[in-house]
Parts: sequence; C-alpha cells; structure tokens
Amino acid sequence: MITFSFTKIQVFDTIKGMKILITSGGTSEKIDQVRSITNHSTGQLGSILARYFSEKGDEVTLITTKKAIKPEARSNLTIQLIENVNDLLETLEPLVKTHQVLIHAMAVSDYTPVYMADFEQVQKARDLQAFLHQENQESKISSSSDYQVLFLKKTPKIISYVKDWNPTISLIGFKLLVDVSREELLDVARRSLIHNQADLIVANDLADIGTEQHRAYLVERDKVTPVATKEEIAQTLYSYIHRRKAL
Amino acid sequence: MITFSFTKIQVFDTIKGMKILITSGGTSEKIDQVRSITNHSTGQLGSILARYFSEKGDEVTLITTKKAIKPEARSNLTIQLIENVNDLLETLEPLVKTHQVLIHAMAVSDYTPVYMADFEQVQKARDLQAFLHQENQESKISSSSDYQVLFLKKTPKIISYVKDWNPTISLIGFKLLVDVSREELLDVARRSLIHNQADLIVANDLADIGTEQHRAYLVERDKVTPVATKEEIAQTLYSYIHRRKAL
Repeated sequence: MITFSFTKIQVFDTIKGMKILITSGGTSEKIDQVRSITNHSTGQLGSILARYFSEKGDEVTLITTKKAIKPEARSNLTIQLIENVNDLLETLEPLVKTHQVLIHAMAVSDYTPVYMADFEQVQKARDLQAFLHQENQESKISSSSDYQVLFLKKTPKIISYVKDWNPTISLIGFKLLVDVSREELLDVARRSLIHNQADLIVANDLADIGTEQHRAYLVERDKVTPVATKEEIAQTLYSYIHRRKAL
Repeated sequence: MITFSFTKIQVFDTIKGMKILITSGGTSEKIDQVRSITNHSTGQLGSILARYFSEKGDEVTLITTKKAIKPEARSNLTIQLIENVNDLLETLEPLVKTHQVLIHAMAVSDYTPVYMADFEQVQKARDLQAFLHQENQESKISSSSDYQVLFLKKTPKIISYVKDWNPTISLIGFKLLVDVSREELLDVARRSLIHNQADLIVANDLADIGTEQHRAYLVERDKVTPVATKEEIAQTLYSYIHRRKAL
C-alpha cells in the first residue's frame, strides 16, 4: 500500500512538474593562470528563479559558476558549475535537448582573450593580423612595459543555437543594457527575440537593478509586461511557462 | 577592584598586541560597467592570517574585496573593502602610517584597461599611440566585430611605496609565480625583497597551492624557511613578527 501511494505521487509530480534549465552568474575568460576577464553577475536572480521553480515542483537544472549565489539544495534541483563560454557551450547542448524550458539569465562573455603583447611590440609590427593567431606560452604573462595590448575574439552566441538544438524548447533570454532609454531597451530586446527565436526576453537596465528591486520588462512578440522585483520576475515567468504548457 | 583588574588587562593587551595591516583577495579593474579584469585570489590565506593574528591579541586591519573569503568578526579586527588598485592606493597610504606591520598578500592587478576598440579600427590607425589616450564613452562597450583590442596601462607598484610612507613598518610581501623551478622562485623573491625594501617575502607557486596545502618559502636576506600549509604560514609569520619586535 505504501509503495503504491508513493508511486501515485511520483506520477502526479511528473505530470505537474516541468523540466526547467536555468543559467545564472557570469562567465570568466582566462588571460593566463592568474587573471581573467569576468562578466559581473551575482547570480542572485538565477538563484531566486531556481528556488522558486523547484519549490513549485518543477525539476530544475541550474548551470552557474563557483562564485555565484546559489539556492539551497533540494532533491529536484541539480546544480552544474561552469567557468567560461566554452564550458557553457559543452554543458548546455545536451541539457537543452532534455529540458522543456531554458531561462538563460547568465551574463556570458562576448569576447575571449587570444594574445597579450607589449605595446612596443604591437606598434612595431607590420601586420597586426598575426597577433590574432598567436598564443601566450607563459602561465603568468609578465611584463615591465608601460602599456600592454590584449587581442580578443568574439565568443559563439550561444543563445542563437538553442532552437537548433531543440526546436520545441521554450526559450527565455535576457538583455542587459546600461543607462539607456526604455525605448532603446525594448527595441534591442525585440530584435534579440526575433534573431534568437526566443519566446520571451527579460529586458533590464543595470541602473534599475538592486538587491531586492529589479525593474525589468518581459518582452513577448505582442506584449510587454513590466515587473519591479526579482521575486515578481520569478512569479511572472512561472505563470507564463505553466500557462503556455496548459494551452 | 573589578575596574582595576580590567584596566590592568587592557594595559597588558596594549603592550602585547601589535598593529597589523593585512591585504587579501584580488583586485578587479573595470573594462566597462559589466566587465572587469580580475586577479584570482580567494582571500583564504589573508583571512586565516587575520584570524590568527587577531586571536593572538594583535589589532588587525584587513583590506580585502567583496568577493574574498573573510574571517569572523572580532572586536580587534577591522575590515575595509576595496575593489581596484586605485582604491587600494588611497586606502593603504594612511593605514601604513599607523600600523607596525604590513602583510601584503593581495593579488594586485599589474595592468588596468585604458581603451577598447574594434580590431579593424586599430589596424587602420596610423599611430597606435593615440589609443593610449582615448577613453570609452559607453557604459557597456558593444561590438559586432570578430576581434577587439584592449589597451592597458601599468598600475602603480604599491609595494614599492610602503617604506617611503613609513620607514619603520615591517613589510612582508608576497610573490606568486606559476610552474617555475624553486631556484627561479627564490631568485625572483630575493629581487623583490631588495627592490621593495621588504623584510620578508612569502614566495609561492600556484601549482603548490590548494585549500589546505600551501607550500611556500619565507625569504629573508640571509634565510629561507619552507612551510607547507596556510596555518603554518600564519604561525611562522606570527613568530617572526613578534620575535623581531622583542629584539
């Protein structure tokens, strides 16, 4: 009898809960063994989202970084740690294929270091193109030069791959700008929505983000929903996702 | 009677305790509002040092970063948070003048961003020197370029100012190298000792640092003391400092 009712609960949970994949925190790209270029993100919003969805009964996988804020452990919450864009790419692809929703809140590095050289060396060079194909051999790049030059290359735009990996996944992206008008923010969010085949973009401005307060616009093709706190972002996204699923 | 014996204890503490300044963690230099170049350092060793010295009765000031590991609060421990080299310079100068010892364990950025530009723009420029005097106006530097170029300039070598600020302070510096021979490590540490008029340099190799394990050499002019753990570094430095004071 006990075994039977336990099974019933499991079946019910499977029906109610969805498989939600959340990314959170900021990636870091190594310059050498002691320095990185880091994208700032405390991971607080992603942590709140992971907690909220898992408490409501969804099966949540959170991809985040060592330094990011993390939610408390739960049986229906799995946490995977990554550091850089390459880790993220490798970790995300198989998970996107096995989840119903991706909430991609991670601040992903746009560029990654290729080569660092003394300014004089760069200034003397005939063809700067050559630096794009070099690699520092030292574990810790040292220099006494007054100026240095770091060459960086664009990282893959991971959000643009998601619908190719899994055309049926619901894709929720984020767009963070700094000190722009509401019009510009919504315009950039709408372009990201179309370009990445996303279902919803959470558009926010760094100037509007505090510990509790977090003004944002949830931008869909035909609708914009303003929200004011991280908790409200979690609630609104939860309703959005579970309403869509019911349709 | 109670008041009297309390006063006696206080007097005893003042004689026994020393004013120790410790720096710990890694500085971050902003590229823009969302990205920084960060020097890796958990702050664990500095935290252990601050705890050890304050538990032994010294009056400790710890300068560290928001993200670094910190010791538990104590009445004889003051913590000041900084982010970048410039903050450190401003915070450190007055404190060096009022402390007897500086243990400078912070991983300080050697270079700070000046200007970021698209690779094509840099390639086309007649004189690269001009980029060293430009400043990005955007709060978030955006680009669709395949490659970018970041110009960086050397930061002030803070450790070299310490004895000018306070000639009587005991200066304990750190030298971190990556994957070098013992000979090279000791050689670089000795040069730092002389160049910065330090009293002792803790020389360590990233390859020898773990959570508990932390192989290092305490390098003085005429002596090298090998140690194996963070706790041992704390004990050895404590004896060194308090033995010197007693002389």
